[in-house]
Formats: sequence, C-alpha cells, structure tokens
Amino acid sequence: MSIEFHVKARAGTARGGGLLTPHGEVETPVFMPVGTIASVKGVSQDVLEELGVQILLGNTYHLYLRPGVETVRNLGGLHGFMAWPRAILTDSGGFQVFSLNDLRKVTEEGVTFRSHLDGSSHFFTPESAIAAQIGLGADIIMAFDECTEYPADRARTKASMELTLRWAERCKNYFEEHKHEVPWKTVSTQSLFGIVQGGMDLELRKESAERTVEIGFPGYAIGGLSVGEPRERTREVVEATLQHLPADKPRYLMGVGTPEEIVEYASLGVDMMDCVLPTRAARHGLLFTSEGKISIKQARYSQDSGPLDPNCGCRVCQRYSRAYLRHLYASHEVLAQVLNSLHNLSFYLDTMRRVRHSIQLGEEFRFLSGIRSRSKP
Amino acid sequence: MSIEFHVKARAGTARGGGLLTPHGEVETPVFMPVGTIASVKGVSQDVLEELGVQILLGNTYHLYLRPGVETVRNLGGLHGFMAWPRAILTDSGGFQVFSLNDLRKVTEEGVTFRSHLDGSSHFFTPESAIAAQIGLGADIIMAFDECTEYPADRARTKASMELTLRWAERCKNYFEEHKHEVPWKTVSTQSLFGIVQGGMDLELRKESAERTVEIGFPGYAIGGLSVGEPRERTREVVEATLQHLPADKPRYLMGVGTPEEIVEYASLGVDMMDCVLPTRAARHGLLFTSEGKISIKQARYSQDSGPLDPNCGCRVCQRYSRAYLRHLYASHEVLAQVLNSLHNLSFYLDTMRRVRHSIQLGEEFRFLSGIRSRSKP
Repeated sequence: MSIEFHVKARAGTARGGGLLTPHGEVETPVFMPVGTIASVKGVSQDVLEELGVQILLGNTYHLYLRPGVETVRNLGGLHGFMAWPRAILTDSGGFQVFSLNDLRKVTEEGVTFRSHLDGSSHFFTPESAIAAQIGLGADIIMAFDECTEYPADRARTKASMELTLRWAERCKNYFEEHKHEVPWKTVSTQSLFGIVQGGMDLELRKESAERTVEIGFPGYAIGGLSVGEPRERTREVVEATLQHLPADKPRYLMGVGTPEEIVEYASLGVDMMDCVLPTRAARHGLLFTSEGKISIKQARYSQDSGPLDPNCGCRVCQRYSRAYLRHLYASHEVLAQVLNSLHNLSFYLDTMRRVRHSIQLGEEFRFLSGIRSRSKP
Repeated sequence: MSIEFHVKARAGTARGGGLLTPHGEVETPVFMPVGTIASVKGVSQDVLEELGVQILLGNTYHLYLRPGVETVRNLGGLHGFMAWPRAILTDSGGFQVFSLNDLRKVTEEGVTFRSHLDGSSHFFTPESAIAAQIGLGADIIMAFDECTEYPADRARTKASMELTLRWAERCKNYFEEHKHEVPWKTVSTQSLFGIVQGGMDLELRKESAERTVEIGFPGYAIGGLSVGEPRERTREVVEATLQHLPADKPRYLMGVGTPEEIVEYASLGVDMMDCVLPTRAARHGLLFTSEGKISIKQARYSQDSGPLDPNCGCRVCQRYSRAYLRHLYASHEVLAQVLNSLHNLSFYLDTMRRVRHSIQLGEEFRFLSGIRSRSKP
C-alpha cells in the first residue's frame, strides 16, 4: 500500500476528498504547513497535532545539508526523527536549488549548486534526489524538476519543460527500483508525484501535463508558479493546467499562497497546497484574521485589550490581548514568534476546514463572503 | 486579605508549607520561574500551567522600561496583561539597577540609572519603586534595596546596609498609604516583603535581619548573594541569616541557583527561590537531567535516539530524541529554545516537588542521593 485518493464531494470545480497515506488519512483540500528542516518554525509537534495538522512538508534540500539524509534514515526517517506520526511530504530540492543558488549549473545529468550554509559544492541528479527522499522516508515524495525562471521565452521554457520530463522518467525508474529501501518498519511504500512545468505558456502547460500523466504517477503537482508572475497569471495557469490532470488523482499546487489564494485555488479543484507564508509572516508580526491582516508591531495595538481575532478559537486568541502580543513583538521575545505562528497556522487550517465543509454541503465559496462570514455565528 | 503562610511539615531545618495569595495557593518550598518582561522566555502560559507553576516572577526594572507601568496597570496589572491567573511576585528593580548599570548614581533619595535599551536617564526612589510595583499588581512585591557589591569592606557594607534599612522604612510607609491602588477588581491587597542585606559579614547579616524584622513585613528575602562570592560563602551566609528570621514568615532567597543548590537551600529552611538559570541555560543548549548536565550542542548526540532524560516525564523527554534536540540547536531553530526551556523548567519544578514530598515524609534529602534516586522506580 502507498496512497489511496477518493473524491467524496464536489462544489463547482472544487472537490473534497480523502488521501489515505501510510501515516494516516488527510482530508482534502488540505493546507500543508512547512517544516523546512524537520521543524515548523516555532511550533512544537504536539501543538501541530492539536491544530489538526494531518500532513507536514519537509524540504529535501535543507535536510540533505543538515542533519543529512543518513542521520534521518538511521533515526527512522523523518517520522521517527521529528517524532511526527502523521503524514509527511518532501519536495525534491529542485525549487531550493533554483531559488537559493545564483551559481547553480544545470546539465542533462543534474544540478551543481553551492550550500547556502557554507558554500560547499553539491550535485543533485534525479536519481540522487529520489534516493535522498527515500532515505528521509516521507509518505509522498516529489520528482526532481527544473523550476523555470520568470520571465522566460518560449524556447527556453520548452527546453526546460523537456528536461523536467526526461528527469521525471529517470525519477520514476529509480524510484521503482529502490522504493523498498524506505526506512519504515511496515511493508508500505512511498508515493512519487510528478510535477508539471511549462512556465506561463498555457500550451506548454498542457503538453507538460499530458506527457507527465503519460509517464504515470499516483499524483500530480503544478510547479514553477509563485516565481514573480502577476497573481492573475498564476490563477490562469493553474486553471488551465488542472483541466489536463486526471480527476481521480490528487493535484498539488506548490508554494501558495495567502488565505484568499488558497481558498481560490481550492475552488478551482486543487487538493493540496503548502506555503511558508503563515509562519514567515508571523515572524514579521503579520497576522491573518477574519477581519483582515494585522501588523501587530504597530503602536496602535499597545493598549488594545481585545483578542487578536474575535472569531478565532485558537489558544492565542482565547487567552491573550493584542496589547500583550504587541508587547512581546516589540520586546523581541521569542514567545512572539511562537504565539504568532500558532495563530496564523490555526487561521490557515480553519480556513481550509471551512472550505471542506462548504464542499461537503455542495456550496460555492469565496474567501471574502462565504468562508469568512460563516465563521461568525 | 493579602497572604497567609503556614508551615505544615518539617524535616531537619527544612520546612514545607503553603503560601495563600490573592491569586491562588503556592506550595513551598517553591522555585519561581522568571518571566522577566512578562514572559518566561520561550514558554507559553498554558505550558507553565501544565508544568504546575503556581507563582511567577516579573522584573520591575524591565517592565517599567517596556511596556511601562501605566500600560500594564491599564490592562489589569500583570495578571491581566500576561493572562496569568496564578500568583506573581515582582522584584523592586534594585538588583537590575545594580547589575545592568555601570553608571548608576546612588544618593540618600534614590538611584539614577540609564536604560540598557536606549541610554535614557531614570530615577528610582523607594517610593517610586513601590508605586511601580503597585501599578504592576503582583501578589508579592519587594522593598527597594541597595544590593551591596562584592567584595566590599566592612564600612562600605555597613553603610549600604543602613541605607537599605532606611529605604525599607520608606517603602513600608509608602506601601501602607497606597496599597489600595492595586489594579485588581477584588478587595485584597499586595504583600510587601523586606530584604536582608549585609554583604558577606555574618554580624551585619544578623543586624540587618533583626532590624528588618523590627520594621515588620509579612515575608523576608535574603538579597545580595550570588554576586560573585564562592558558593560555600553563599551557603554560610544563608544559613546564618535564616536563624534570625521569624519561623512563621516565608523566607525568600533571591536569584539562586543550580538544581543542587536549590535543594540545598530548601534543606536549610528557605521557602522561595527564583533564578533565570533554567531558561538561560536552555538557550545555550545546557540541559539539566537526572543523569547530570548535558550540553546538547555536542556532536556526540547527533545519532542518539534516546530521550534527553529517561527519568523525566515532560513532553520533551516523552516525545523527542537527543538527536532531534541536537539537530534543532545546531540548526538555530527556535523550537530548540522552546523545548529546552520547557524541559529545564520541568526539571526544576520536579526537583522541588520531590523536595516537598521528602519534607512531608519527614525525610532528610540531598540532591545527589535521595532526590535523584527517588525519581527512579
């Protein structure tokens, strides 16, 4: 057994379902918090469980550099290493090699890049990226792709897409030969998802989707977005690409977005999303609430005895005032990051919970109307 | 009502009892975690409750500078501001003025000092320090004293002690006139404790104790220790001073110590202690365990799948491996501070819980034998 995916309800183009993994069921559409280096920054695993997180994302690039794949493998894979019994997905490192390395060198064989930590030189191939992900032992792992830069002309976009397709085959071949080397004690195996590229070109996106589906994966991701393009363009590409992905397989949109955006993408039929935004914004004092964004560092909150979000049931909103949160942030107390991250994650997870509820009821939904207003009695 | 203190059991010179405050009962001897600026660094209030913390300490010097006394008063005092319904004690700022300010200027009237944050100039008098503490609204507040530097000759020590005694009178007078200005909704008032000084001179300590008792307070602290003197000297001064404090009043030893030391001072008859050591050490990766101190940053732990402390029942030891804690520390993850602080506080609180249990059984105890061995089944 690896994964099973079932669509159970529909509302317009949106779908609600369940993704059964070797480490538990994930209700979809789902927002996956990012635990870059085996920790969701500032949030302990028991708090994540309490928030109802069913699947976490880990970054292969970061974990490969620190603590290293063999260390994680020896400690039982990511589940054992970080004491997280629920589902995990790892990316392939392709995006970090693209975004964190100005000096990367891409060849047919793979990518040479320098560590952002110490400048040391490393080489990732489709095979080594899959080997690393088998060692890390997430439930779902991702093909090693080239994230096409933005902007890029058609020739460049096509060449990049073709490379990603050739790499997808190599990833699948390597995975099939080695999938039983996963560091789990059960007989189940991981699931390898393919990634659609093709830049902002809708025809290339169609071709990439069809040829990735031809190779055949148990799930498909849309990569190469949120790389600097306007948001309307992102939406257009997502909508166009989704049409060419099989309805019976999970669809994962990588690296998005704001609360409004994740609701919108779910309405288009995306099943899985991840983003560092809730935790990164929290570290900068930017908090998402049912009444809009709040920059808690502002002096206007220094005497505000009200809760951060009167419609939120999280531990932070139930206990602390805006004045206290503002004080913690202004005083550089580490508890500011802890509490802000907890709230923002709670807000994202609640948002998706409401999306799933709307889908079950067969209702259309939009962030600014239905989803938000339903949170008020 | 302010506080009530009852000694309920004795074992040698040690006493076990209960301190009833306007915000709940505190079992003694007690270790008070330090929430310098209205936050125990890295640990949220619900975790403190879960750890069984019954009383927290706040620092008037820090809170006076940020967010300011009036802000805290307007938000219901420290209890309301930091959403902590249990007991709180504030120090007077005397120690921080001493330890954080090389340029302080002491006169009969008070102390001029510079903020460690922005260099701005401030003036504390016994009266203003008490006014600040009334505004902060802790259950127990402390007289404004001069912490005598170490080393100091007899003349200097005596002059400093005399100043502290004159200030103690002024503190008491101001407090009696203003104690009903506390920002609580109940009719209870705060309790003001006196502080014994006298440097390392046992005769001056005796004189300071007797004359402070003569002024009359509901509790007495031993100040001016842990200022650089050898540990055997600290113990000697504590032991000598305790003999001159009334048996029916709580005795608070300020700013100590290691787990071994807090057990030792409890065995001498100290009822209350506080120290930043558990949280500060945690930030530096130094962890206290039943098997001794562990520096979790060491590479030797990078593959260690065992718990931090096999005899500890805290959330950290129940869930995570030493390898994971080492990884978090080495990767500068904020969760390292969160988990390390939680464990160290748990270790301190468990240590004192065992001390209280031994006292109830009328047993003598020492850290290295009874207290530690009792933690093993």
